Parts: sequence; C-alpha cells; structure tokens
Amino acid sequence: MSAQRIALDVMGGDHAPEATLDGAREALVAWPSLQVILVGDEGRIRPLLGPHGFHAGLMDRAHVVHAPGVVGFHDEPKVILKEKKNSSIRVAAQLVRDGHAEGMVSMGHTGAAMMASTLVIGKVEGVDRPGLASLMPNLGGTPCVFIEVGANIDSRPEHIAGFAIMGAVYAEEVLGVPNPRVAILSVGEEDSKGTEVTLEAAAILRKHPHLNFQGNAEGRDIWNGRFDVIACDGFVGNVVLKSSEGIARLVKDGLKEALTANIWRMVGAALVKPALMEFFKKLDYKEYGGLPLLGIKGVSVIGHGSSDARAVKNGIGAAIRAAEGRLHERIQARMAEQSTMTLEDK
Amino acid sequence: MSAQRIALDVMGGDHAPEATLDGAREALVAWPSLQVILVGDEGRIRPLLGPHGFHAGLMDRAHVVHAPGVVGFHDEPKVILKEKKNSSIRVAAQLVRDGHAEGMVSMGHTGAAMMASTLVIGKVEGVDRPGLASLMPNLGGTPCVFIEVGANIDSRPEHIAGFAIMGAVYAEEVLGVPNPRVAILSVGEEDSKGTEVTLEAAAILRKHPHLNFQGNAEGRDIWNGRFDVIACDGFVGNVVLKSSEGIARLVKDGLKEALTANIWRMVGAALVKPALMEFFKKLDYKEYGGLPLLGIKGVSVIGHGSSDARAVKNGIGAAIRAAEGRLHERIQARMAEQSTMTLEDK
Repeated sequence: MSAQRIALDVMGGDHAPEATLDGAREALVAWPSLQVILVGDEGRIRPLLGPHGFHAGLMDRAHVVHAPGVVGFHDEPKVILKEKKNSSIRVAAQLVRDGHAEGMVSMGHTGAAMMASTLVIGKVEGVDRPGLASLMPNLGGTPCVFIEVGANIDSRPEHIAGFAIMGAVYAEEVLGVPNPRVAILSVGEEDSKGTEVTLEAAAILRKHPHLNFQGNAEGRDIWNGRFDVIACDGFVGNVVLKSSEGIARLVKDGLKEALTANIWRMVGAALVKPALMEFFKKLDYKEYGGLPLLGIKGVSVIGHGSSDARAVKNGIGAAIRAAEGRLHERIQARMAEQSTMTLEDK
Repeated sequence: MSAQRIALDVMGGDHAPEATLDGAREALVAWPSLQVILVGDEGRIRPLLGPHGFHAGLMDRAHVVHAPGVVGFHDEPKVILKEKKNSSIRVAAQLVRDGHAEGMVSMGHTGAAMMASTLVIGKVEGVDRPGLASLMPNLGGTPCVFIEVGANIDSRPEHIAGFAIMGAVYAEEVLGVPNPRVAILSVGEEDSKGTEVTLEAAAILRKHPHLNFQGNAEGRDIWNGRFDVIACDGFVGNVVLKSSEGIARLVKDGLKEALTANIWRMVGAALVKPALMEFFKKLDYKEYGGLPLLGIKGVSVIGHGSSDARAVKNGIGAAIRAAEGRLHERIQARMAEQSTMTLEDK
C-alpha cells in the first residue's frame, strides 16, 4: 500500500472538533501508511492535539492546515463557496484539487461539501452530475450501493444511468464485488413499470456493453441483497435514506421501551444485549463512516453531521479504499465506454 | 351504529379463500351489526362455510354473491376490467356502486382493485386521481396517514395537493385527529426545498382555507409522529412503503439470527419474547388490515396479498369505520372548498 494523504474537515459536524480529532487519531493508529491533513482553525486545533492523544509518533503523519472560516448548517452552499473561501470544507477540496491529498472527508454541511467537491475538485470527464452513494446493509454481508441520496433532484434519464454506472465501479473496485448486479429503483419488477425517466434510464443501461444490468428493483430490494447497485433520482434516494434512519430510531426506541417494561424483561434484555448490540452494529451507518461522492476527479467522503469518532475513523477508511481503487480514473474509463457506445448508436 | 354492508373479494390474496373466509367470520363475531357479502366462486365458497365456522347464527349476516372470474397477479388491470366482468374484484365494486354495500375489501391484485374501484364505483366530484393511503405506525399511538402509495406515478401538483386534502379528511373522520397537521414529503424542511412539482403542490395547499398545512416533511418524519398526514407522488410513496417492508423483514430475520446464536441468548430471548411480540405487533401493517383508497364514491380497502385472517378482519374493520365516517361525502365537501377557493383566486 502506498502512502495515502487524506484531508479532514476538522470543523465539520455536530461534535467537531473533538470527534473529528479523535477519529483522525484512531485512523492514524489503524492505518500506518496514512497521512492526515487536519484542516480548520489552527488556533483551536493545535491546543487540542495533545489532550486528544496526538503524541510525537503520530504527529509525523498529522499536518495542520489553517482554514478559519466556519460553515453553518443554515448557510446556502453557493454563499459558502463564494464568500467563505477560507472555510475548512473548501480548503480541504483545494488540497485534493492541487494534488496535496488523494481524498477529503467532511462530516459538515452535506450540500456545501457536495458543492465544494464538485466545483473545486471538478467533475470526471463524461459525468454531468456527481452522485452521493449510500451503502445499505443486509444480512448477506456485502452492502448494496444505493445512489443517489444527496438530493440531486429532477434527474434526467442519463443522470440516473450515470449513477448506476458509477455505483457499479464503486461496488467492483471498493467493495470487491465481481460483475455487480445493477438495477434501477421502480414500482414493480416488470420492465414496463416506472416513470418516463426511469424507463428511459433503463433503456440507456440495457445498451451498455460492460454492465450487468438486471432491470427494475423494488423498495424491498434495497435491503435483501438481491442487487449490488440500485440507482434512482436523488429526491427518491434522499427520502428513502432519511425514512430508513427514522425506522432505525423507531426500532431502537421501541425495543428499549418494550424491554424495560418489567423485571423479567430487564433480565432477559441483559442476556440478549450482546445480540442486540451486534445486530444494531451490523445495521449502523457509522460502520461505513460516510457516503462517497462519485464522479469527481478525486475522492470525497461526506459523513452524517452526528458522526462520532468511530464514524470519522471509518469515513477516513472509506476515503483510503476509494483512493487505492483509483476510483475516479475507473469511472472516467467506464463513462467513456458509455459515450463511445452512444456515438456509435447515432 | 347503523348496519354496515361490506362486500369482500373472497378470491383475492395469496391465502384465499381460506384466510378471507376466516377473516370474514372473525369480523362478523367482532361487529354485531356487520353484514358481509362474500363475493366469489359460489361452488367453492359454499362447501367451505361450515368447516370455517359460519354457523347458522352468523349466516343471517353472511351472503354469497357468485362471481366465478379469477384475476391473476400477472393480469393487466385493464384486461381484467374489459374481459373479466364476472371477476370477484369487479363484482364487489358493482355491489358498492349499485348501493348493495357501503364498502368493499380486497386482498387481491392492488392495481386491479384500484382500477375496479375507480372505474366502477366512480370518482368523487373534484377528485382527478384517487389515492391509496397507508397508515404508518409510530410510538405516539396515532399513525401517520401516508398518501399516495399505489403507484400513481408522475403526479401533477394538484394531484399531490388532492392526496393531502383527502388524507386530512381520513385522519379527522376515521382516526379522530382534530385539525390534523399536514405536510408534503420533500428533501428538506425549508420551504425552498423540493422538486418543481412538490413546490407547486405546497403553494396550492398554503392557500387552502381549512387545512392545517405545515410545509415540508422529511423521510424520517413518516415515523416520528411529527405530522398526521404526509402526501407525496405515488412513485416515491410506493418505494418508501416497500422499502419499509424490506427493513421490517431485515430486522425480524436479523434479530432471530442474533438471538439464537448461543444458549444464554436463547434464554434471554425467551424472557423478552412477549416484549418483542408486542413491539412487532405495534409496527405490523396487519393491525390496520388494508389501505383505504380515497377519492372514490364509496369505500374501498385494499389489503396486502399476503394478508392472513387477522389482516382480513382488520381490513373489514377499516371499511366499516370509513363507511361510518361517510368519508367520500366529506372528501367531496373539502375538495369543493378547494375549487371554490381556486376560482376566487382567478
């Protein structure tokens, strides 16, 4: 493994900078060839390094880059890019663009992180809209690449087809799935089911020379391991992702309530606690640490605002794997096959 | 309570006619003023009545109407209506149209049941597209009316606004929620977030004189009790509903696997079993029995193909409540307010 340099937006996230610094330290311990660039307000970061366990041995691989600008959750992404040129999100993206880092990780404002990654790092040739992918767990082991969840709304058919192709590259190169099974999210299995946009996206994918396209998926297929990649418009994907988070909370709260209702249940709950922990860990997005933004000329992993240190560490891990897989180069190659094919069609 | 006559599509569903007959018997026992019209192949139904517990006392309130046509899950809805005029779904709808029943219940082919209800019973004046509503559970007690889930795709803004208004009438009249909080499903809370269609639908609802419209909901709000009604296009709703079913299965299977991994867990699982059963019952769609189709001139409740006797019984219960609430008359009145308002606007 060659050295990987990851720029971390230390100031992004609900629990920043403490959780981001702890996550960075854990990542440095876990991956000995990792270099972390800590991007944020140097005056705030430096005094925290000692207390957060960055001892001399680790400091060889941790660098601080000053970026005092702060992005609020209610700032408009465009404003951030225009007016907050010194914000940690934007500076992290510049480090990737200028070749000082292979990838960036941010747990901050999702819209701003997507926009900074897209506009500063730039899009892969042939990609019109980069897409945010989420890894959806199932009992089979390998998660399903569900793309797009970043509220890329009113997608055209070629956008959804692009999400599917980029998701397939991710499944193959980062998750190690050979010949991933790709589907488009719709309201029925039959090829005739769908909106005008999904039907046309399916028609594009059917013609792709090197894609294992299997037609329509239904909502339940996101969770049963039937497909390796499921593509959809970002409105639908965002709603499904947030709905899933809502169900996860409902299940956790509801089980807690039910399991503490009387003493026998509490005894039973103590006995099954390891099982429940194991089960929830399997379904926990924090295990994946963040969502890769696919289709940009570099690596960008965007995490949940509520990320804790473990999620930050795993987000850095996801960025390392994506950088090692040389993801954007492979996406560019795959998109080129697509456009060659389209040209031949005409 | 006046007598309620419900036409049951005995032949519809994966476990028909056994589960439908058992459900009908349970409903007759539960609601003493209920009359059930058993619609289906008389030659198959009659011999099953005795073995399924329809004793003389119940038979006063159970009537068989012969309809030998069978609708398969792969039949196209249009074909069913044109060619299968004697199918049980269609005959049940005719009984409602002709005033022989206040409502119908079918666990058969969803598309065919929606089409039969819409075309045979007819639409409420002012309603362009009837919508299938689902009741989504939460820990607060009163479920959220989530509409539309019947794959009414490519909705226009006025369709989504109509779903919201009809859902509010259902929440008020059937679930007993005073002044229900209504929202449109989108990708962010801010009024500016959404597709062109959802933004325009919100603009229509903001002008409605008697609706407690609260703006945008996010995916997680379907499950947290924040709103009483959440409206969306049928593509999104169908995907969210099926995705939720997929998660429910994943949670059940995953917990089962985790709780049987060793002997201590199995002991603990035995102690917490009542808690788990209680919890899953709370989240089980079978408790609601079926989805009401709103916007037709009568009552139609459409259940899951996999419905068991309990789901059939509860579906009949849902139809009784909708009939008692004189739902379609109230929907018509509420839609008229809407159109008066629109005319005044112009």
